Amino acid sequence: MIKESLIGEFEKIVGKENVLTSKESLKAYSYDGTSSWIHEPDVVLFPTSTAEIAAIMKIANAEKVPVTPRGGGTNVSGGSVPIQGGIVLALAKFNKIIRIDKENMTATVEPGVVLMDLNMALAREGLFFPPDPQSFLGATLGGIIAENAGGPACVKYGVTKQYILGLEVVLPTGDVINVGGRTLKNVVGYDLTMLFVSSEGTLGVVTKAELKLNPMPPARKTIMAVYDDVAKAGENVFRVLENGVIPNKIELLDNWVINRIEEMMPMGLPKDADAVLLFETDGIPEAVEKETEKIVEIAKKYGATDVRVAKDQAEADKYWLARRAGFAAVFGKAPTVFAEDVTVPRGRIPDLIRKCKELAKKYAVEIVVLGHAGDGNLHPSILTDIKNKDHYDRAVKAMDEIIEGAVELGGVISGEHGIGLEKQKFFRKIENPKVIDIMKGIKALVDPNNIMNPGKIW
Amino acid sequence: MIKESLIGEFEKIVGKENVLTSKESLKAYSYDGTSSWIHEPDVVLFPTSTAEIAAIMKIANAEKVPVTPRGGGTNVSGGSVPIQGGIVLALAKFNKIIRIDKENMTATVEPGVVLMDLNMALAREGLFFPPDPQSFLGATLGGIIAENAGGPACVKYGVTKQYILGLEVVLPTGDVINVGGRTLKNVVGYDLTMLFVSSEGTLGVVTKAELKLNPMPPARKTIMAVYDDVAKAGENVFRVLENGVIPNKIELLDNWVINRIEEMMPMGLPKDADAVLLFETDGIPEAVEKETEKIVEIAKKYGATDVRVAKDQAEADKYWLARRAGFAAVFGKAPTVFAEDVTVPRGRIPDLIRKCKELAKKYAVEIVVLGHAGDGNLHPSILTDIKNKDHYDRAVKAMDEIIEGAVELGGVISGEHGIGLEKQKFFRKIENPKVIDIMKGIKALVDPNNIMNPGKIW
Repeated sequence: MIKESLIGEFEKIVGKENVLTSKESLKAYSYDGTSSWIHEPDVVLFPTSTAEIAAIMKIANAEKVPVTPRGGGTNVSGGSVPIQGGIVLALAKFNKIIRIDKENMTATVEPGVVLMDLNMALAREGLFFPPDPQSFLGATLGGIIAENAGGPACVKYGVTKQYILGLEVVLPTGDVINVGGRTLKNVVGYDLTMLFVSSEGTLGVVTKAELKLNPMPPARKTIMAVYDDVAKAGENVFRVLENGVIPNKIELLDNWVINRIEEMMPMGLPKDADAVLLFETDGIPEAVEKETEKIVEIAKKYGATDVRVAKDQAEADKYWLARRAGFAAVFGKAPTVFAEDVTVPRGRIPDLIRKCKELAKKYAVEIVVLGHAGDGNLHPSILTDIKNKDHYDRAVKAMDEIIEGAVELGGVISGEHGIGLEKQKFFRKIENPKVIDIMKGIKALVDPNNIMNPGKIW
Repeated sequence: MIKESLIGEFEKIVGKENVLTSKESLKAYSYDGTSSWIHEPDVVLFPTSTAEIAAIMKIANAEKVPVTPRGGGTNVSGGSVPIQGGIVLALAKFNKIIRIDKENMTATVEPGVVLMDLNMALAREGLFFPPDPQSFLGATLGGIIAENAGGPACVKYGVTKQYILGLEVVLPTGDVINVGGRTLKNVVGYDLTMLFVSSEGTLGVVTKAELKLNPMPPARKTIMAVYDDVAKAGENVFRVLENGVIPNKIELLDNWVINRIEEMMPMGLPKDADAVLLFETDGIPEAVEKETEKIVEIAKKYGATDVRVAKDQAEADKYWLARRAGFAAVFGKAPTVFAEDVTVPRGRIPDLIRKCKELAKKYAVEIVVLGHAGDGNLHPSILTDIKNKDHYDRAVKAMDEIIEGAVELGGVISGEHGIGLEKQKFFRKIENPKVIDIMKGIKALVDPNNIMNPGKIW
């Protein structure tokens, strides 16, 4: 438990109205997007400036109080759960878009800016921030940076780290540093910017970020291809890419997901299909036309039983709404859901899907496959119930084997969700102890009192 | 001086023919692409496997012998100069392309692979590695990774780090680790891959790299735009980009460079122009046509006095040959040349160019401007003579003010050459000591005996 006297000090720093200690408030900040872990903090603080955060960190460091930064709380690996109590540093009110620099195609933002709000402001300038985690309605830039978030559009545009040019960070000691800068090219000592990106809030608090932006593509088109075999859909992914077409999205939904979506909101998806792929291509209109033709041609060549090009944006929106509903469809259907985040080299997607099918049979559990097929990042999900011990145990075994299978196929245990609390077991098992030693050494160097988001990653 | 007995041990590891100790050999490995620093190693070793390098590092670490890894020796900041003697680890023979995976669009390479050789092998598969340092005829992948190399094509494609998915690294202790993987999405603990990229050979020896590739664009087109004011050319750069056109190259040559090239090999460049911009756009033919039209239109709108579209690849090649000859033109014209590598936010290019012109007047020295205008990475070069004390002193002052000016404009002291030996003075002056402390802490953690490329960066 935190010392009572500290609450008064925090009130002086951020103002009484920005310090929450009521039972209900602490409960509201005790979980993340998964609800798998629940732990209440001692206090929730809402700073709105770098100076306030520096002052808070100085006290926390002196008193060895854990600090867990939190953006939208939309993460799905336990990253923002204050598992050792202490302070939740809620950054939602520290949320100004400081500058949009059209000439340099960059933006400077505070950590609490919600991705959707940023993209709406950027759209008015003809710009956009490409990484698109599907939690964009709530996810904040600070969290997106801490988790190196991905999303569907990474096939073409890459992940968050490729759009972070520089950061202002408050270190666990309360010192403020700037790393990186405002230019794409920057070789000035070790790349500390990339060290803070994807560090899951364990090395410091990002208080300002310089984002690289892209010009908004003037045209886009959506194509749905239907398959009688989900592994064929998997193969189709890399056939399109190896033909030189890079759509910005290639998403996969399997038969189970298609049918749950149709139950929730009928929109004419092919209910008897084993899988569908949704492609989106963007760019100048001439290129989009040409790429659409190519995608249709290749999909037909590699066994799609039907290929539909959305006739207008309204039809396209319908398909993408279906895709976004995928996760809700899965989570709504069972008391407990394991939503994996494995990522394999693209050429191995059919193997991973076959593996999931085998394991579903072997353990008699339902394994649903959906996800960002274009970059090999699938979210196989297992439906189970923690209260049904026999079923749950089989689900755990199946999940373990999916993860091991992905690693055997040359993949990784997490593509975009992070290790957090959820993947620690696999991280320890799979990672070379020498590598973990270096990571822990860096952690000890930057956070000697281990106060930043303790208990995460390892 | 290295102990005589160690030479015998090294011969046992790599074979007698791969150990050089003759006077001439040591001289050949005493300098890099700049010739500004010369220091001979005690021995040059040519390992051809990870195991050999691990064995060498174990001995070097136990005996505290400095080890300087070296690829093509084309770097231009002193990075591969063995400034404290010891071992030069020459990686030129450790140069197999292990695998080109067309389905996953990745390649696995050893560190000694020359970029030109890689791209020729990739071209046969319809692929390419986008970063294009202009030393590609000699530069090796290991060095390209160590320096996070850039080049003209970074405007559209980004820098080296965006194409490195994973690395095998021999640590200074001789331990072998793998970081990253084969997938684009990968959030598994701290991003150590990005720590080794751009570490200038100070943290370990890259022995294998997993590269992300792009499909080869089927069409490309070159446009030359002529300006009567170099600052107008600078403005034109971001006007093109803010209109949503992203060429893969936007290069700038000023009047001085144009005239030196015309002296060396007349090719019809406009000798009375204050500057020219060379654009290249690539992609599918329809998109390339459209983008070419747009570039021509915008260049005319913003003051280009003449705009020429290369009618065929032969004419385009001529222009790009001229661009590559730029550095040779500069270096051939004075006994001593300072070739800067400052990078500013794109919108500030005209300001940086104006600054260079002012300083040329103020210090009565010739300042030549060429470089990768598209990403704000210019190489202003000062022609001087180290033997002419008065002139040289003025050149140093002008150079210092260019670098300070770039930083004031929101830029950085090195875009793609690195700190090495050359920029240490500025690095110490500009960087926050807390940031340097973290970098030094990481160095001490990974290389406790300070044997990897000692004397560099700080």
